[in-house]
Amino acid sequence: MKKIGVAILGFGTVGCGTYNILTERREQIKIEYGIDITVSAILVRNTHKAVANGAPQELVTDSIEEIVSNPSIDIVAECIGGIEPAKTYLIESLKCGKSIVTANKELFAKHWGELEKYAAETKAGLYFEATCGGGIPVIRTLTQAMQANTLLQIKGIINGTTNYILSRMSDEGASYDDVLRDAQALGFAESDPTADVEGYDASYKLSILSSLAFNRFLPVENIYREGISNIKIEDINIGKKLGYTIKLLAIAKLIDGKIEARVHPVFLKNSHPLASVSGSFNAVFLVGDNVGEIMLYGRGAGSLPTGSAVVSDIVFAARQIEHARYSEIADVIKKSEVISDFTSDYYLRMTVLDVQGVLSQITSIFASNNVSITSMRQDSGAGVVSIVFVTHKSNENNIKKAIAELSSLSEVQAVNALIRVEK
Amino acid sequence: MKKIGVAILGFGTVGCGTYNILTERREQIKIEYGIDITVSAILVRNTHKAVANGAPQELVTDSIEEIVSNPSIDIVAECIGGIEPAKTYLIESLKCGKSIVTANKELFAKHWGELEKYAAETKAGLYFEATCGGGIPVIRTLTQAMQANTLLQIKGIINGTTNYILSRMSDEGASYDDVLRDAQALGFAESDPTADVEGYDASYKLSILSSLAFNRFLPVENIYREGISNIKIEDINIGKKLGYTIKLLAIAKLIDGKIEARVHPVFLKNSHPLASVSGSFNAVFLVGDNVGEIMLYGRGAGSLPTGSAVVSDIVFAARQIEHARYSEIADVIKKSEVISDFTSDYYLRMTVLDVQGVLSQITSIFASNNVSITSMRQDSGAGVVSIVFVTHKSNENNIKKAIAELSSLSEVQAVNALIRVEK
Repeated sequence: MKKIGVAILGFGTVGCGTYNILTERREQIKIEYGIDITVSAILVRNTHKAVANGAPQELVTDSIEEIVSNPSIDIVAECIGGIEPAKTYLIESLKCGKSIVTANKELFAKHWGELEKYAAETKAGLYFEATCGGGIPVIRTLTQAMQANTLLQIKGIINGTTNYILSRMSDEGASYDDVLRDAQALGFAESDPTADVEGYDASYKLSILSSLAFNRFLPVENIYREGISNIKIEDINIGKKLGYTIKLLAIAKLIDGKIEARVHPVFLKNSHPLASVSGSFNAVFLVGDNVGEIMLYGRGAGSLPTGSAVVSDIVFAARQIEHARYSEIADVIKKSEVISDFTSDYYLRMTVLDVQGVLSQITSIFASNNVSITSMRQDSGAGVVSIVFVTHKSNENNIKKAIAELSSLSEVQAVNALIRVEK
Repeated sequence: MKKIGVAILGFGTVGCGTYNILTERREQIKIEYGIDITVSAILVRNTHKAVANGAPQELVTDSIEEIVSNPSIDIVAECIGGIEPAKTYLIESLKCGKSIVTANKELFAKHWGELEKYAAETKAGLYFEATCGGGIPVIRTLTQAMQANTLLQIKGIINGTTNYILSRMSDEGASYDDVLRDAQALGFAESDPTADVEGYDASYKLSILSSLAFNRFLPVENIYREGISNIKIEDINIGKKLGYTIKLLAIAKLIDGKIEARVHPVFLKNSHPLASVSGSFNAVFLVGDNVGEIMLYGRGAGSLPTGSAVVSDIVFAARQIEHARYSEIADVIKKSEVISDFTSDYYLRMTVLDVQGVLSQITSIFASNNVSITSMRQDSGAGVVSIVFVTHKSNENNIKKAIAELSSLSEVQAVNALIRVEK
């Protein structure tokens, strides 16, 4: 029977889940795939802590050298996260011809090309199902099931923390700050939540998905990014009346050979399949020219769902005779192939003084910037009026120019919210 | 560059879609996978008709001998449907060492074991993504992405025709007969709709999915099957008030090492992710012990979605150096491993005479058969009362015994509807 040795780097949530699944399923994997996969080493910084958390003493090491020099280790599964030391460890592993499996979206999004180069030299494999969507098989779908399609669109709810926060704000009418605090207490958000709530995590994942889908590596710098920390419960409530659900969406589109990619909050029409994806669930919506619309839904994070993706990659890698190469994809997209001035419908809320002629001034600014209005609703207060506009499809640059001009009007107290609308 | 020749059997909806996709994507497949895949032959009964429908004269043949004896043909993609002559053609192809790709769920569900035997002899491959869920990558997910999981449940909306009919009945308040007639006129239902509306098609697909998921071949005879032709608009309307959506669901579960499998209409709680899958869309909901819940959603039929699955399999097969074997799965499940007396919640509607004591008689029959009631609602008419019961989890055998006893009561005019309820 084929024997495969695995080293797990890191013994946190994902590393521990990976270890447990590999150990429990060893016999089943032998039966189903005829391969005996054993965990040969677990690399951690603090060996005592890892043993206390259930890692077997005899497997634990704090030396990457021990791992890369061990010829019985074929696959290195990285579950550390962050750039260093993970990057150095993976490069050392690839140099020694060991295939790598990683759950590290930040590292992979930022250094795919470099990792690919080292992998190509020793013909080792790169596997990264666990970087996107936890247990949802979105990488496998893109690489093994879309061969008959030119991908046209990706729309994903790919960050569980923000989806959890927005779902609770929406369900409970609670403020962002209150829900975030509670999410932190419950372990659904980190003590420093920036990577999640400001959309960095989602943009790393979108970079990976978009690169695979459109066959050109799209660095995160090319992704427009906006987080959820400015989302007000007031807008969520108005959105509900308009038939919208608020989501942090990662969107990438192929338009006339160019790529548009962005991560930002959106109002989704309630009838959209993604609108009902709530709490910590993730979902990715794909459009292919032949297959049409596909949606994949599941748990985007957690020890066992993400561990399941890591183990799936380990078994998948163990069965390969020759590893797939992504050298084409690793070519960075040309600047001229990136669309930054994208189009969208927009929701705009502003507070204006209740004086005659103000609406005419506002609408003429919209008109002069080629922004046309679908609907308007007004709520009067003491001397001020809150106005909500929803626009037809407009250009991002035009809407931003319109907002700058509106803000400079003395009658406009504030442009309170700008949220893109997806149908 | 690796060259792969493909023969397409049949030039109907799926065969034509397959041909068009393969032809249009030939250059892209060369770039992405380094394989030149060409269509070398198209087998049809009526060559003139095929040419009139767009098949190139020089590829069309009515002789399977020409195909199996052609050494430049590596893969045979069967898009004929039905048992014969498809079965003979596939066996001839496998005998000659050609891998087969099929969209034929009936053939595959009934003769997987036999095809597997022939494939094993010549080490040819069997690929069948297109048999289930059209363009939804459910076979790929089960075979390439669930290695870390023991599958516990499959629940699927896997027949587009019935989902289309039930969605329209529900949306429009129209009767089954009216919607069926319209669906036939629009091409969403066959002139003989039996295979779809009576659940045969769904049970073929469930046989394939369940066999893969649980690693034991489950013949269709072991699947409880009930169609939608008796569904009344009256029950759909009452279901709506109770918070239910009507769906034809295919369900398979692993319970204590045994398999339970059934296809029948259900009332699904509106909050279930499958409840919002409407029209001709399909979706498959999977539960794995580690990954938790996953749902895959997309177009379950049509020329391009199903053609997309066929072409995906062709490219997947073309890239294999050694084809996967399913000899374990091809072993038929033991009778003792099949659960026929499954449990469910039930919706029951009956018409009874408006006489004293009838309710007490009914409830005592329920009680004596271990069926306990969650809710009851009554609508009085002229001398008769329509009563709807929803039960707690009960055994199928018990509920059927209760119905038999209820039907024999002189006060019970009819048990009008029995619909299982899924939460």
